[in-house]
Amino acid sequence: VASVGASETISFISDYGLEDEFVGVVHRVIARVNPNALVIDINHQIPAQDVPAAGLALWRCAPWLAPGVILGVVDPGVGTPRRAVAIEVNGSRTVFVGPDNGMLFPGAARLGVLTRAVELEADEGVLTAAVAAGFALPSPAGATFAGRDVFAPAAALLAAGAPLQSLGSEVDVSTLVGHTIPRPEAREERGVRRVRTEVLWVDHFGNAQLNAGPDDVAELGLSPVVRIGDRAWPARVVTAYGQLQPGELGLVVDSYGLLSISLNAGSGAQLTGVVRGSEVHLVAAH
Amino acid sequence: VASVGASETISFISDYGLEDEFVGVVHRVIARVNPNALVIDINHQIPAQDVPAAGLALWRCAPWLAPGVILGVVDPGVGTPRRAVAIEVNGSRTVFVGPDNGMLFPGAARLGVLTRAVELEADEGVLTAAVAAGFALPSPAGATFAGRDVFAPAAALLAAGAPLQSLGSEVDVSTLVGHTIPRPEAREERGVRRVRTEVLWVDHFGNAQLNAGPDDVAELGLSPVVRIGDRAWPARVVTAYGQLQPGELGLVVDSYGLLSISLNAGSGAQLTGVVRGSEVHLVAAH
Amino acid sequence: VASVGASETISFISDYGLEDEFVGVVHRVIARVNPNALVIDINHQIPAQDVPAAGLALWRCAPWLAPGVILGVVDPGVGTPRRAVAIEVNGSRTVFVGPDNGMLFPGAARLGVLTRAVELEADEGVLTAAVAAGFALPSPAGATFAGRDVFAPAAALLAAGAPLQSLGSEVDVSTLVGHTIPRPEAREERGVRRVRTEVLWVDHFGNAQLNAGPDDVAELGLSPVVRIGDRAWPARVVTAYGQLQPGELGLVVDSYGLLSISLNAGSGAQLTGVVRGSEVHLVAAH
Repeated sequence: VASVGASETISFISDYGLEDEFVGVVHRVIARVNPNALVIDINHQIPAQDVPAAGLALWRCAPWLAPGVILGVVDPGVGTPRRAVAIEVNGSRTVFVGPDNGMLFPGAARLGVLTRAVELEADEGVLTAAVAAGFALPSPAGATFAGRDVFAPAAALLAAGAPLQSLGSEVDVSTLVGHTIPRPEAREERGVRRVRTEVLWVDHFGNAQLNAGPDDVAELGLSPVVRIGDRAWPARVVTAYGQLQPGELGLVVDSYGLLSISLNAGSGAQLTGVVRGSEVHLVAAH
Repeated sequence: VASVGASETISFISDYGLEDEFVGVVHRVIARVNPNALVIDINHQIPAQDVPAAGLALWRCAPWLAPGVILGVVDPGVGTPRRAVAIEVNGSRTVFVGPDNGMLFPGAARLGVLTRAVELEADEGVLTAAVAAGFALPSPAGATFAGRDVFAPAAALLAAGAPLQSLGSEVDVSTLVGHTIPRPEAREERGVRRVRTEVLWVDHFGNAQLNAGPDDVAELGLSPVVRIGDRAWPARVVTAYGQLQPGELGLVVDSYGLLSISLNAGSGAQLTGVVRGSEVHLVAAH
Repeated sequence: VASVGASETISFISDYGLEDEFVGVVHRVIARVNPNALVIDINHQIPAQDVPAAGLALWRCAPWLAPGVILGVVDPGVGTPRRAVAIEVNGSRTVFVGPDNGMLFPGAARLGVLTRAVELEADEGVLTAAVAAGFALPSPAGATFAGRDVFAPAAALLAAGAPLQSLGSEVDVSTLVGHTIPRPEAREERGVRRVRTEVLWVDHFGNAQLNAGPDDVAELGLSPVVRIGDRAWPARVVTAYGQLQPGELGLVVDSYGLLSISLNAGSGAQLTGVVRGSEVHLVAAH
């Protein structure tokens, strides 16, 4: 039986923001169902309804979140027939819980094999299991807050050791909505090697993470040119922001092993004008 | 004896914001007094000193927060003779702690009967009890942070099972400062039924919650007109954002059972220009 | 968090912001190493890379954070040879963990004597100790996230009772990077007493904390003049915001025992135009 231990953590990511009570109410519901769960807030400022951004965030940090329950709620389809799911990874103690819209897939797939999944059914699955556990919540007053009414109880029960199959009917993992991380593309043009990359993320410090690591640009030399539209900057590949001179743009190997367009004590994204999704070409210097 | 159990949660809401250390210091003080308390942050971005907004937030989510201690600190009168109180609900394990300025009242009243209350007295009540519990804190250096110096120790002691009366002298619950939630008003004007409502809350996603549920507008038909000042929109009553077409304004039954002016994947508040307190008329379509 | 057990709290402050997963990943890593630790977020919105602001925040609230581990990560030099350290205070259960760049020093020094310190060495110290504790983390993919890869495991091990010396080699505490809090300067000019102060902090409510308490201005009378550049305001010294009239600027004894330039229900900083570091003269009224 795949179930998580009685004291597993629940890592929680959403687009609920921090101006309202949504995050807190989800915590409170989890504590009612499973007072021993340790709920860790990963990020609640995913841009509203931005499923790909949530998928990328979970893809980045999944190795640090496992084992345990990973609760992800960016759910523009709430209240429509989109599926609510729990996805087990590696037949183990790691279960992703959330809407089946692609946000869970990249992180789950990064950790290994998706071994089983169930569709969470509020009335017949999750809440029946919750009631069986001697636990009662206020009746949902509407259908728009599945984080509170479906996903939180499900995550809490899983973290308390409930078997996956107790929460709903099994679904074929091959039918889960996928979402893939774009790969860099290397090519040669007029005798010059270049790699087409994409900005995956701009962080709080202004670092623009690319979908390419040092190995992907190894043939471009130690100081490729960063080309964005009509503009270009030489950029050394370094391993710390502090190895760059003030005002020098660089390609820093970031904490996920990917290259980021960065400044020392400044914003690489602001200097270059990139945002998530921007196309960036790395070109061998002459 | 009214006291809460040794492992009760403390649900914490304030206007302290997240840019400073206020919230963290309150958590740390609670942990010093009661290391077993589970403190859940409900929301700390209530607009500064906005007592009615805090009251509405607690009114909305109180059913999910009980049982346990509910700590609310929006306290423009700190340091003046306004009372600091703990209010017991239903003679039970649910106690609201905070200033007696109306922010606690709507949530407490929603849960049932206010059975007892005490005035928290920093020197003679809370701190004496804390010292008796073998616990010492730094002396308050000023009188402006009652969240740290009065309310946090009181909440921590209550969550550890301290009897209500050990924290201060009893006060008549009928003297507590109230605050009422406005009710919608139905009327007929030139043969047309209309309901006057008010915006209670605009959430992070741009949904504008009204003080009216589906029952309040049942006589207006399935698609009333939303009238705000000189402008008007037809709006279907639906139960999920995803039931609306892109760009279609609707009245969605939200997660609290109230109607909200919403868009699918957009901000209903922005489109209509409403803010908290705006007057909105719902009118029967012809 | 169910319970802390014997484990100490970890009070965590950083400039990681709340838009990304940095804070959550640090929490998750701590929970992997020490599931019983109670991690308390003090503030993660220290301005990016602003070491003095972080030092002042820890200096302000250190008395409420001790005993326990205090984890501070504002680390512009990450990946460069700046030292990572753990600093023991008063030979006791209070240990500051973070970069040796001055951010830890003021808070530690405020609590008493810096009795010992070790340099945290990722490969030979912290991670060896973590592995010895039967604990494995993903290999760091880059060198830019010492909060995740060095400081979090170190804090978690210390909170679980690991001896300081197990985490690295001892360093001379006299070589730690210091950072001093500016002192007010009193003088007499043309027969008028005045005190030169500096704004240490502007909080969420707009209160501008000065580096002077009531004793420092006792000789100026009960209502000194606040002089900033060419402008001046009379300002009574009071102990609560509510003692000021609407629109009246005052000097309120704040929750740290320092004077703050404040308005009742408004922003003293905005009215006077001060920011952190602004020079403010307090002058005896005639």
